[in-house]
Amino acid sequence: MTTPTDATYADQLDATDDLAGFRQAFVNDDPHLIYLDGNSLGRLPRATTDLAADLVRRQWGSRLIRGWNEGWFDLPERIGAKIARLIGADPDEVIVADSTSVNLFKLIIAALRARPGRERIISDDLNFPSDLYIIQGAIDMLGAGHEIALAYSSDGIHGPVETILGLLDQTTALLTLSHVTFKSGFLYDINALTAAAHAVGALTIWDLSHSVGVVPIHLKESGADMAVGCCYKYLNGGPGAPAFLYIRRDLQEQLVNPIAGWMGQRNLFDFDLAYQPAPGLRQFLTGTPPVVSLALIEPGVDLLLAAGIERLRAKSVAQTEYLIELWQQRLAPLGYTLNSPRDPARRGSHISLGHPEGLGIDLALINELGVLPDFRTPDNIRLGIAPLYTSFRDIHTAVERLAQAVTEQRYLKYRDHRPTVT
Amino acid sequence: MTTPTDATYADQLDATDDLAGFRQAFVNDDPHLIYLDGNSLGRLPRATTDLAADLVRRQWGSRLIRGWNEGWFDLPERIGAKIARLIGADPDEVIVADSTSVNLFKLIIAALRARPGRERIISDDLNFPSDLYIIQGAIDMLGAGHEIALAYSSDGIHGPVETILGLLDQTTALLTLSHVTFKSGFLYDINALTAAAHAVGALTIWDLSHSVGVVPIHLKESGADMAVGCCYKYLNGGPGAPAFLYIRRDLQEQLVNPIAGWMGQRNLFDFDLAYQPAPGLRQFLTGTPPVVSLALIEPGVDLLLAAGIERLRAKSVAQTEYLIELWQQRLAPLGYTLNSPRDPARRGSHISLGHPEGLGIDLALINELGVLPDFRTPDNIRLGIAPLYTSFRDIHTAVERLAQAVTEQRYLKYRDHRPTVT
Repeated sequence: MTTPTDATYADQLDATDDLAGFRQAFVNDDPHLIYLDGNSLGRLPRATTDLAADLVRRQWGSRLIRGWNEGWFDLPERIGAKIARLIGADPDEVIVADSTSVNLFKLIIAALRARPGRERIISDDLNFPSDLYIIQGAIDMLGAGHEIALAYSSDGIHGPVETILGLLDQTTALLTLSHVTFKSGFLYDINALTAAAHAVGALTIWDLSHSVGVVPIHLKESGADMAVGCCYKYLNGGPGAPAFLYIRRDLQEQLVNPIAGWMGQRNLFDFDLAYQPAPGLRQFLTGTPPVVSLALIEPGVDLLLAAGIERLRAKSVAQTEYLIELWQQRLAPLGYTLNSPRDPARRGSHISLGHPEGLGIDLALINELGVLPDFRTPDNIRLGIAPLYTSFRDIHTAVERLAQAVTEQRYLKYRDHRPTVT
Repeated sequence: MTTPTDATYADQLDATDDLAGFRQAFVNDDPHLIYLDGNSLGRLPRATTDLAADLVRRQWGSRLIRGWNEGWFDLPERIGAKIARLIGADPDEVIVADSTSVNLFKLIIAALRARPGRERIISDDLNFPSDLYIIQGAIDMLGAGHEIALAYSSDGIHGPVETILGLLDQTTALLTLSHVTFKSGFLYDINALTAAAHAVGALTIWDLSHSVGVVPIHLKESGADMAVGCCYKYLNGGPGAPAFLYIRRDLQEQLVNPIAGWMGQRNLFDFDLAYQPAPGLRQFLTGTPPVVSLALIEPGVDLLLAAGIERLRAKSVAQTEYLIELWQQRLAPLGYTLNSPRDPARRGSHISLGHPEGLGIDLALINELGVLPDFRTPDNIRLGIAPLYTSFRDIHTAVERLAQAVTEQRYLKYRDHRPTVT
């Protein structure tokens, strides 16, 4: 009889995994490599390779400017409508544009203008620093007494829900949080926090970058006002793929995009001198989108839709539970700490493990041991599980290599290094 | 002896054109097609096809997240430094980021903050409507008494230079114009207008979208403060390629990017909660750039650098002069008007021809006659000459087909159509 620490146990789990076949839909050039960074950059879908060749060689090379009328103009709404199915929104409530940061900027400004007289934006210290920078930049620019109120997590792992609820009041214009926090993987309850924000008349913006594609999201049902999210993580859209934004339909024409770009103009080719916003969500487009990077988002989204978000979540929970089981048996005795929530209902699809030699271990994994996790200061090794292509055996192997990095003191030679992207 | 209206005359010009060989560096699948829309979407360089395959299949597919440390992080500055050589700037004065519209937004806000107490932005009615929309959006957002003062061209062709000079005064925060106007192709004198703006203490932003790659530009020498420009027109960077921005070095750290994205943060991977701008121009980066679309800009820029901007300008002037000569002999008698400046020193690299049946002619050219120009309301057929790959024979053939569209009344069946992108 096998136990979880046996490799054959992992193989048995893979053998009964009805999503296992999706792994073949992705390029995998190095069978030795365990890739646990799908939450930073998703793998390349095989279909994307052909699409890229078609986009460049035929659509651009042969069709030239005609490409715009042969599909390029529709990409932001067409791909947005597919992403909508992953996040419980209607097709006309999601659009693809710009980067997550630029989209967040547009929505923050729009939210503040929609709540005049309210000066406060509430967020937490577990949010993406990039989101906090955008809030700060927006507030500094407006210079009208706005301020950010940060709720601090007591343990760096769990979101400070009670503190946030305590901060919400009549001065709150906006509550904005990461649905799944980037470091610990804490999963906020969108419904409860949106209801609390609405109870004091505040708006909400959810950053779905670390949840879209792995956690079921029901934006419409939750009453959430706005959301942004990344297409290059679990959506497998490619490096720096443009991002998406969501605005609840009844809010769309109450909000104003401060970056009044020509792609959001009502009659694009009238070339009027005065800006007239397009109806619906299209007014939140800005300049000309990067067509190649934009179009390449689609195959990855199609794979997620084919797998089904509920099945992906079930597998993701089984895999993070399995990883935690292995951590407890194999890694905790070697000094690894669990820096993610124990409760799967409050957890996304990545697990963070701390270790006093965290950075050295991370670099040994990358450079010597054939594991690609990523590192987040101060000591955090982040293991991203993408249920579409991560196998249980991947997890087992990764844990064995994490153990090896410590038992063989592989971290020693990296002690002087500084963190980089991976 | 041949005359300009003979096809052999064009062939003789091509035979002595020392840039003629560059045409082979571009994909050209349809020898019948005359492509005169390189000012909307440049052709596909052959080298870009291979680069796209490498980017997607190897850099993303095999190298995965490691791609960031293997070149992706450097792309904005590395490609920016090459574009700098096309516009007379130092390598650290140009960066590639976002779209032209988003870059313009960032710079307008930065300019207004750098000129407190001055409420006016001056532009003209020949500017890209997209730029005017961005100005309007920025002003509406700030809501602090800012206003736009538009100078109107008397003939729709020539820039209203005298009116602009008359508008400049102590209330002017910013003068922003297209270097080459998108419809008529009028070419402003950057040096003279920058000096005039500086004389009243105003800043300048030049939109170089229709001049970069075909007109020599000497930003540093001119003292220009800021500039933005497009990479998908004469730079041949691909549909919706990210744009560039220029800030004169001594201004870079006086200005503040309102969209304080993580790519512009000083220590990217410290994940500090507080934003600290990176030194130099890097603070004007925002979110994660669309790597595939961004990287594909480079081969087109390399070709322009190899050809040399002075040689490209000489050929461009010869070609627009030739086109005007043929217009006069062949097209003026058929009702075509010249909607671009006669003086080559005041003209970019495209020629606009008006005709009462302009839209129908445009559609007949596209759908029946094998010419791709583009159309700009109300009656304007815009013929873009990209000296890197447009031949004199192309111009001759295009003129013959423009004549044919009228003599055979090909426009009749398109009278009910509306303008689209081409």
